[in-house]
Amino acid sequence: MQTIGYAAQGPDTALAPHVFERRELRAHDVALEVQYCGVCHSDLHTARNDWGWTLYPVVPGHEIVGRVTAVGSAVKRYKVGDKVAVGCMVDSCQECDQCEHGEEQYCREGMTGTYSSPDRVTGEATQGGYSKHLVVREEFVLSVPDGLDLSRVAPLLCAGITTYSPLRTWNVGPGSRVAVVGLGGLGHMAVKLAVGMGAQVTVLGRTDAKAADAKALGAHAFLVSSDEKAMAAAQSSFDLIIDTVPVKHDLNPYLPLLDIDGTLTLVGQIGPLDEPSTVPLVLGRRRVAGSLIGGIRETQEMLDFCAEKNILPECEMIRMDEINEAFERMERSDVRYRFVIDMASLQG
Amino acid sequence: MQTIGYAAQGPDTALAPHVFERRELRAHDVALEVQYCGVCHSDLHTARNDWGWTLYPVVPGHEIVGRVTAVGSAVKRYKVGDKVAVGCMVDSCQECDQCEHGEEQYCREGMTGTYSSPDRVTGEATQGGYSKHLVVREEFVLSVPDGLDLSRVAPLLCAGITTYSPLRTWNVGPGSRVAVVGLGGLGHMAVKLAVGMGAQVTVLGRTDAKAADAKALGAHAFLVSSDEKAMAAAQSSFDLIIDTVPVKHDLNPYLPLLDIDGTLTLVGQIGPLDEPSTVPLVLGRRRVAGSLIGGIRETQEMLDFCAEKNILPECEMIRMDEINEAFERMERSDVRYRFVIDMASLQG
Repeated sequence: MQTIGYAAQGPDTALAPHVFERRELRAHDVALEVQYCGVCHSDLHTARNDWGWTLYPVVPGHEIVGRVTAVGSAVKRYKVGDKVAVGCMVDSCQECDQCEHGEEQYCREGMTGTYSSPDRVTGEATQGGYSKHLVVREEFVLSVPDGLDLSRVAPLLCAGITTYSPLRTWNVGPGSRVAVVGLGGLGHMAVKLAVGMGAQVTVLGRTDAKAADAKALGAHAFLVSSDEKAMAAAQSSFDLIIDTVPVKHDLNPYLPLLDIDGTLTLVGQIGPLDEPSTVPLVLGRRRVAGSLIGGIRETQEMLDFCAEKNILPECEMIRMDEINEAFERMERSDVRYRFVIDMASLQG
Repeated sequence: MQTIGYAAQGPDTALAPHVFERRELRAHDVALEVQYCGVCHSDLHTARNDWGWTLYPVVPGHEIVGRVTAVGSAVKRYKVGDKVAVGCMVDSCQECDQCEHGEEQYCREGMTGTYSSPDRVTGEATQGGYSKHLVVREEFVLSVPDGLDLSRVAPLLCAGITTYSPLRTWNVGPGSRVAVVGLGGLGHMAVKLAVGMGAQVTVLGRTDAKAADAKALGAHAFLVSSDEKAMAAAQSSFDLIIDTVPVKHDLNPYLPLLDIDGTLTLVGQIGPLDEPSTVPLVLGRRRVAGSLIGGIRETQEMLDFCAEKNILPECEMIRMDEINEAFERMERSDVRYRFVIDMASLQG
């Protein structure tokens, strides 16, 4: 099937309309018409080949919401008209231990990314959700629960699950003391989700500029990291820190804030960190970990949790032809908190 | 009571005989005659004030084995003649959550170190086991099980518990895949203890120079970290890495060796590390943690475990007056694997 999307043709080109073919339905495939697609920083990184693995042309987008338009002959879970979503993965081996226990993001053979990843059957590059249509095997299609405002669901598929999964992995619940570093797309979801789980949530910022925003999102406290006295008073006071900072930075101010056996989880930066000191780690058995999105089962659980608690991201709706301007604004952190493309704005 | 030990009078002076007072027995105190004392790298760091907190004069030594010579009026657990041991701590608040659940090393008020730490009653600096006699409150005295060769027990009190505790914290048992980085005093105990717990144990070295030694200690495999092919083949193959390297180093070669959800535990370096990449952490939910000795209950458990499994460190016995030469040799890593001072060599 022919479709249209917005693609980068190379690392230095702006995104522009791009007509391309979606594969014919395989037996287990679901076809959908994309209604909304969130704009993630990874889209920008991939469009510019910042990580070196981009396959051009690339249609970004992995926070995808839409309606089923057709299903393959063997599809059981979905039918035409269903409200569905697709996140960062569209395939995996489905046979290894990780896939078996629902953590396809850690598939032993490597998951297939929603864009710029070789299709497991044809080897062709996958293309993402900045497009009118998408074809995905049903195991990687999520069901959007009734009651969620469809126009705001998309960012849950990456920003949501990326912060939900570590909150679950490290057993956050009522009474947990959670800190969030960085209040962007990921950080604001971490706050809402942790609050929804019953945790006491503190946002850290370099100045108090975002204190009111943090409170408005539900955070119980705001800690200014340049305030040495406040930081000293907050030593050993968190069970979990979700660190969403997407650039090289220094963990040393944050590690002493963890209680004994506490964990700082990195979900933002993909690359080097400044030199960490082992002192807070050794003297308090503190831990630093990473976390990558979440499995399909957990993503569905997150969507259901958000429906139950009525948790949705703060979104700014844009037209498809505003994407390049949105990328520029995202680079200046000029977004509260996630751009969502209204795909009805894309003329086929 | 007057006693004699070997003390450093300042950061640049060699250890030399030093006559000093041990406190009169408090109600809960145990007095012991020191028979053996292990030589830990921390002794050297403290004698030279490498960490900046040394109180001079300092009598080092926190791997201590001896016989009870007197007990305070309220002591219940020990009597004159008992074989006992003292490790890195001699006191703590005994009231906080950490002390309550037997992790005095993480006492909220700070544990009292065996040497160069202010006594909780008098404020005077504690003095360690490079001495004829020691006075310690009974809660911090361990019982040495029968059947263990007393001349080789001392290093268990620091090198032993420092590696035993993380093996227990991260649930090592039959079938666990454990790697050990660094084959010194700590590393060789990590190998013996992990083997004793039924784990599959691999030692990592920059060259194969220590491969035979590792095998002789019970390790099942040896991995040469400069062999890129072997390192690539070993990706994702360990549940736990015990990193005993006591200097600034680079974790990046080791982190990809951890399986998904695996942990690298730092027990050697107290200070900065080279810049780590978040990539192996994020892409495999891998973790980096620290660990500090172990609690008193766990230290007793470790001694009992060693007696049951007949696990003892490899020791080189020295006289007290050889300590300065031993420090020099230790700095060149010229020891297999721990010096132990025969305190009978110290003339009172």
